[in-house]
Amino acid sequence: MIQIYTGDGKGKTTAALGQVIRALGHGFRICYIAFFKSPKKWEYGEIKILKKLGIKVFCFAPCHPHFYPEISFSEVRKECLKGLEFVRELLNSKSWDMLILDELNIALRDGFLKEEVLTLLDTVPENLEVILTGRGAPKKIVERADLVSKIEKIKHPFDRGVSRRAGIEY
Amino acid sequence: MIQIYTGDGKGKTTAALGQVIRALGHGFRICYIAFFKSPKKWEYGEIKILKKLGIKVFCFAPCHPHFYPEISFSEVRKECLKGLEFVRELLNSKSWDMLILDELNIALRDGFLKEEVLTLLDTVPENLEVILTGRGAPKKIVERADLVSKIEKIKHPFDRGVSRRAGIEY
Repeated sequence: MIQIYTGDGKGKTTAALGQVIRALGHGFRICYIAFFKSPKKWEYGEIKILKKLGIKVFCFAPCHPHFYPEISFSEVRKECLKGLEFVRELLNSKSWDMLILDELNIALRDGFLKEEVLTLLDTVPENLEVILTGRGAPKKIVERADLVSKIEKIKHPFDRGVSRRAGIEY
Repeated sequence: MIQIYTGDGKGKTTAALGQVIRALGHGFRICYIAFFKSPKKWEYGEIKILKKLGIKVFCFAPCHPHFYPEISFSEVRKECLKGLEFVRELLNSKSWDMLILDELNIALRDGFLKEEVLTLLDTVPENLEVILTGRGAPKKIVERADLVSKIEKIKHPFDRGVSRRAGIEY
């Protein structure tokens, strides 16, 4: 099945991480694939613990042009396609029970990935859980998914000038 | 700070669990307190992994009258107050960086707990993260919180008759 966590509120990636913890307790074989995350730049607390728990973690397209204006659209698209190809291999291997595609919605929202994602999602079997996170999940993906939660920001400390906090935002 | 995850969509408890994993990676001292959960009845995957990670887990008021009509309102209130007293002790001990109060919103929504919760939340220092989950967070609690995410159900497999799945719902 396909799950999507989208919207402008906090809780999308963390909900996916919570699903990992819950699924792991039932013996799921889980792979975590992140887009637009730079573990070299930020010390993500969650990646440390996922690895400690034996979860495989992979990162693709670490630089989003919003933060790295020097990177070109085509470079990012290439990186995203590489990530998608990797996911295709994981799907074909039939060795996994849960795949987290963290921030993949962003790749779709910003046009780095297009129909390729839908084509790939069509090959997801019913007994494999694929979880997509990120703002701006497009309508076609929402239609294709089995479970969709839209997380609305009612309030966030960012709004009163609090910066990203270790252990909370990363 | 106080975080709240509420709404009718999937992702409230799992977002709190994700926060645990992230915070743990930065060395937070975390205690997980669940209301209306029966670990004896359901084999919660997340509780197994939290314990494996050395997180302390406590459960109060395991039986909600919605599922256990034989239990009286006053019994449940008593159990909830016991949980709250336990949280007060944790707060006073100053030994924790993050407390998860899973499904505490339900205790408020259904009237098992009242002003006592607000009084307690007023004692939460800025450097302690307290996370409340559950549907129907009352307005007063939302006003008091620093971060509130409302998770809206766009779709859920329950709606087409799929039952609770191990590793996904528990």
